[in-house]
Amino acid sequence: MIKDLLLTNSNKIVFLILDGLGDIPNPRFSYLTPLEAAKKPNIDELAVETGILGRITPVDTGITPGSGPGHLSLFGYDPVTYEIGRGVLEVLGLNMDLQDGDLAARANFCTVKNGVVADRRAGRIETKETERLCATIAKAIPEIEGIKVIVRPGKSHRFALIFRGKNLSDKLTDADPHKDNKPLVYSSPKTGEAEFSSTIINNFIKKIMELLKNEKIANGVLLRGFSMKPDMPAFSVNYNLKALAIATYPMYRGIAKVLGMDVKEEPKDYDEMVRILKDNYNSYQFFFMHIKETDTAGEDGNFPAKVDAIEKVDRIVPAIYDLKPQVLVITGDHSTPCPLKGHSWHPVPLLIVTQTGEKDGMAFHEKNCIKGSIGTIYSKQLMSLVLAHGLKLDKYGA
Amino acid sequence: MIKDLLLTNSNKIVFLILDGLGDIPNPRFSYLTPLEAAKKPNIDELAVETGILGRITPVDTGITPGSGPGHLSLFGYDPVTYEIGRGVLEVLGLNMDLQDGDLAARANFCTVKNGVVADRRAGRIETKETERLCATIAKAIPEIEGIKVIVRPGKSHRFALIFRGKNLSDKLTDADPHKDNKPLVYSSPKTGEAEFSSTIINNFIKKIMELLKNEKIANGVLLRGFSMKPDMPAFSVNYNLKALAIATYPMYRGIAKVLGMDVKEEPKDYDEMVRILKDNYNSYQFFFMHIKETDTAGEDGNFPAKVDAIEKVDRIVPAIYDLKPQVLVITGDHSTPCPLKGHSWHPVPLLIVTQTGEKDGMAFHEKNCIKGSIGTIYSKQLMSLVLAHGLKLDKYGA
Repeated sequence: MIKDLLLTNSNKIVFLILDGLGDIPNPRFSYLTPLEAAKKPNIDELAVETGILGRITPVDTGITPGSGPGHLSLFGYDPVTYEIGRGVLEVLGLNMDLQDGDLAARANFCTVKNGVVADRRAGRIETKETERLCATIAKAIPEIEGIKVIVRPGKSHRFALIFRGKNLSDKLTDADPHKDNKPLVYSSPKTGEAEFSSTIINNFIKKIMELLKNEKIANGVLLRGFSMKPDMPAFSVNYNLKALAIATYPMYRGIAKVLGMDVKEEPKDYDEMVRILKDNYNSYQFFFMHIKETDTAGEDGNFPAKVDAIEKVDRIVPAIYDLKPQVLVITGDHSTPCPLKGHSWHPVPLLIVTQTGEKDGMAFHEKNCIKGSIGTIYSKQLMSLVLAHGLKLDKYGA
Repeated sequence: MIKDLLLTNSNKIVFLILDGLGDIPNPRFSYLTPLEAAKKPNIDELAVETGILGRITPVDTGITPGSGPGHLSLFGYDPVTYEIGRGVLEVLGLNMDLQDGDLAARANFCTVKNGVVADRRAGRIETKETERLCATIAKAIPEIEGIKVIVRPGKSHRFALIFRGKNLSDKLTDADPHKDNKPLVYSSPKTGEAEFSSTIINNFIKKIMELLKNEKIANGVLLRGFSMKPDMPAFSVNYNLKALAIATYPMYRGIAKVLGMDVKEEPKDYDEMVRILKDNYNSYQFFFMHIKETDTAGEDGNFPAKVDAIEKVDRIVPAIYDLKPQVLVITGDHSTPCPLKGHSWHPVPLLIVTQTGEKDGMAFHEKNCIKGSIGTIYSKQLMSLVLAHGLKLDKYGA
């Protein structure tokens, strides 16, 4: 429906996404949430004076989303219909250049004894060991049967792979027994079109086994999460908005690229994010700014660090709002409550700063968001609300 | 989606279902609801200290559910997709042993004059008369054409039937004109597969008419609500939870059995329900405890009786919570407001006692539930939220 109602104007929409923002009352900190405890005078002034509050449910009630579904839904894509594969997310997270037709995979170094996977993580070898092994592989196996192989080390025993060439398919089972002390497995095609890819993958694995046979610990590899750039409509086409992503972490720049957003630079800090926003403000209508530190703090269960991250974001908000966006959205892709040390299913607090709202007149935190005029909506519904406040949607029906 | 995300752990989930719990402000009692008026210090302490509140809509906005849809939706079954037939509910309510392939029916004794149903309820004859007539039928017609007939008296003119044998079908029209002073009707097959069943049913009716021809009032029978045990996935398979039902009323034990839950004993009172919970606590992960009295009081329009039932339940709550379930849910299958003297469409108040919630800090009653962090969800969404709080759901997507 949205597509038929789109209007064109130069009004700006800014999404300031604090990853894992949502939290629950923390018994060790007077039952406050980080968003409640943080001193954020700039955000709260906007919230009280011209804000509307609510909550977003990323996937469905009780469902804890990964980063893929979390972000897809923020941008109006149904996260159950559209999927970004695990291999794709991994290569994006390692800042690899994923192209159309590339086959991506996550990989581990592992320990194999007599054809049995004794340790799926090769004793969690150090990152520098993985870097050394990846360099060895890159040098020895630059391609297989005309398919280029790009390898990049991750942390500890992890690395990522891109296979580049014609006729590749991701309809493949994992080359991973998923448990220790099980026989090494190869990848099988799930459909006929993936037979060529499975041959490539399995020959690659055999070559690595030969290459690493004298390594004591990391003498094998496991490949999983085979996936390709998903086939989904571009954000700019869906909403008739030129979109720029500004994110310090590669994975989020990568997700934005998958959605067809522009990524111009790789900012090192929040100030540089604001500078990039300013430099490009006139050339785009939609800006996706991504803050990672709130999620990292939540994953670590570190309440003070999450408070600190929110306060740091608060300091850049005036510079963003001074640009006078028609709509400024501050929310998260999912909750990462400190007490749970991980992503969770809790609805995410949402603030929309807009001149055309109900003006809820409340500071921005989880408890007020329950009472806000937006109510609790699905994340995938957010874009149409935002387009409305951006005065970018025509009337439906006469 | 849920099925792919299930995690296995020993965390316990207890559903304490107060049938017909929801109510509306009562003009004869200071506009309080029974849940507001009841003194329930134990429930409210849990609600305030570690509870989250909300409301559940059993079927859809404005729709008043029967007991079948009410309970199916609580357990995560879409009540529009899945149905428990009226005949099945009737035989379950009379504690009959319904088996796979059995054909169940509700029945009335009626008064027939010259082939016309003069009184569909045979002057609402006394229960003991129905008992006598049922005994007569059971003795005279134990089977028809190889199909076993099991008859059990209900209250007043009502009784229930099970036909047991091969090749039975419930694709049958009612053998009931549904109005007085209409000709007696027989059952017709709706599909070819039901032709054999309709012959059995109609021969049974004819034999009864012959048997009762000298009875003055109750000289005929009406059969309706033909149905069989529905074909639905077992609760334990859906959620990977071993489930035990603890209910004083047969119908609710029966519904639980239809869903594949275990039913070990038939408790006489609330204390015995708690004893059964304790005795079986280590062998199950999910417990469905059913309280009937709140609904009965609502149906009677008896506000003090409903308050009393809630207060009695409050007294057993400490013994339940002392077992330290990960999640304790207190809610109803539907509302039965005293002023309406019947089931209603009003969303049902919901309390979830959990360590991983938003801690709403409010006592448990309808007005606070409107403001709770859960919001108003469909009953069929409750199970995924509960599984989430039970830490039994993995992340969706990478």
